Amino acid sequence: MGGMELGMIGLGKMGANMSERLLRGGHRVVGWARDIDTVVAARQRGIDTVDSVAAVVSALRAPRAIWLMVPAGKPVDDNLAILLPLLSRGDVVIDGGNSNYKDSQRRAQQLAERGLHCLDVGTSGGIWGLQEGYSLMIGGDATVVDRLRPLFETLAPAPDRGWGRVGAAGAGHFAKMIHNGIEYGMMQAFAEGFAILEKKTSLGLDLAQIAEVWQHGSVIRSWLLDLCAGALREDTSLGDVAAYVGDSGEGRWTVQEAIDLDVSAPVITESLLRRLRSREEAPYADKMLAVMRRAFGGHSIKSQPNHA
Amino acid sequence: MGGMELGMIGLGKMGANMSERLLRGGHRVVGWARDIDTVVAARQRGIDTVDSVAAVVSALRAPRAIWLMVPAGKPVDDNLAILLPLLSRGDVVIDGGNSNYKDSQRRAQQLAERGLHCLDVGTSGGIWGLQEGYSLMIGGDATVVDRLRPLFETLAPAPDRGWGRVGAAGAGHFAKMIHNGIEYGMMQAFAEGFAILEKKTSLGLDLAQIAEVWQHGSVIRSWLLDLCAGALREDTSLGDVAAYVGDSGEGRWTVQEAIDLDVSAPVITESLLRRLRSREEAPYADKMLAVMRRAFGGHSIKSQPNHA
Repeated sequence: MGGMELGMIGLGKMGANMSERLLRGGHRVVGWARDIDTVVAARQRGIDTVDSVAAVVSALRAPRAIWLMVPAGKPVDDNLAILLPLLSRGDVVIDGGNSNYKDSQRRAQQLAERGLHCLDVGTSGGIWGLQEGYSLMIGGDATVVDRLRPLFETLAPAPDRGWGRVGAAGAGHFAKMIHNGIEYGMMQAFAEGFAILEKKTSLGLDLAQIAEVWQHGSVIRSWLLDLCAGALREDTSLGDVAAYVGDSGEGRWTVQEAIDLDVSAPVITESLLRRLRSREEAPYADKMLAVMRRAFGGHSIKSQPNHA
Repeated sequence: MGGMELGMIGLGKMGANMSERLLRGGHRVVGWARDIDTVVAARQRGIDTVDSVAAVVSALRAPRAIWLMVPAGKPVDDNLAILLPLLSRGDVVIDGGNSNYKDSQRRAQQLAERGLHCLDVGTSGGIWGLQEGYSLMIGGDATVVDRLRPLFETLAPAPDRGWGRVGAAGAGHFAKMIHNGIEYGMMQAFAEGFAILEKKTSLGLDLAQIAEVWQHGSVIRSWLLDLCAGALREDTSLGDVAAYVGDSGEGRWTVQEAIDLDVSAPVITESLLRRLRSREEAPYADKMLAVMRRAFGGHSIKSQPNHA
């Protein structure tokens, strides 16, 4: 398969790893990032970089393919605002970040009005993608997807696996959003199971051994379980880890979408709520519950230890 | 490794498949089942069968290993009541079914009092185990586990993978119970994700393609996802499938255990409750909600279509 050329806007963990995987696959990548240290690090990895978005555009022959791998939201729109006047009819912009699918639908419309193409590519694989390949969920015109096939074949775990057009503009980011919602639920299920095992001290349970047994032949074998097993092999106590869980937005969007569609999705919803709870110190709701129990039943309340 | 000999009590889907896998591994298996058709079917698969539990015992040299693969609860105790007077000091009984771990602790005690050994082996792998091997979570004395090592090495996906001693008596069934609880949560997470995708009709989403893309390189890749992808490849509508989900008890036990241990496990709990909900026709609770809404807000209620 012939090597293609691609502009990569954004050279963070994802953008740089994807660029490197494309280089290894025989493609030409011209990269740019806003942060100079990021650019230097990418150049040290052998990625060809230039010093502006305009330089990326002029380094590529039309019809161009320009991949945006920047944080969702304003950074995508800001880069598009710079890019659009520079591009030529027939060029393709690929948004590989975690954009909200409604933004992707709007942008596809905006680009189409200028004769430009747009693909939204939900990308999963995280820091392991360089080595194992990325799962690519692609939304947009089938002919445009087909034109960029060599790029997808290189980025995916194998040319015939792990990538595909999943629907119209927005569909790629919609599928990625749901992927992340499912991920929240799976993670929470594992987390709860191991929490029960950890609390059951009377059976001499070997948590690392249990995780390892489950990795082979069990119904719950999965890549997330592999990650759990790896963590437990190092330290079953998780003593250094704060019980604080972040989120990057896709779980919230999944819950909102489920409600908009009148679909009950309790496990995905609860998994998001548990992350919010992990960040609450001394939740006001729990104080209210304690106060009510005292009021109706005379149950004693604990006093807040750090209260001045 | 030398072949061992084993008695197999119970030759249903699990017992017969495990016997066949042991035969292929060079072990000798003497089987018995209560149901004559089950025995005939096993014999047709090349499994050596006899016509009573006593005949199983007398066909084996001491110290014996006898594997129970019968439904949890009374069938295990009934078979043990027949077996115990026939066994000799040093014999091992293995319970490979989905027994409650508290029963397994009690039985280990009961057998120990007679100088018999007992292992509780949580077994995962279902109908695919014959081909892919079983995940085996073993509770009981390490020396006894070691004595039966060749059997476990054959039943597992590979001699060095997918089996292990996870703790004291009861630990194997405890780990299997938690495995199934996690399985409920993972299944529910996938189910909700695909339900949202199915309801989102405006994006031309290709559910089968999405599942296939996720199978490779994504964070949620897993054996359960492989099963989802297989089902969706055949029929995305799931038109023939009733929205009715059974359960075999381990999910209930997991939820009870979590409560006993003061561990909040909302996703596993909710996954169980969703299965109960799937079996309720016209839930009384929903009727109560409708009545209350009418009472305070004058919201109209729908009338029950099949009411005589």
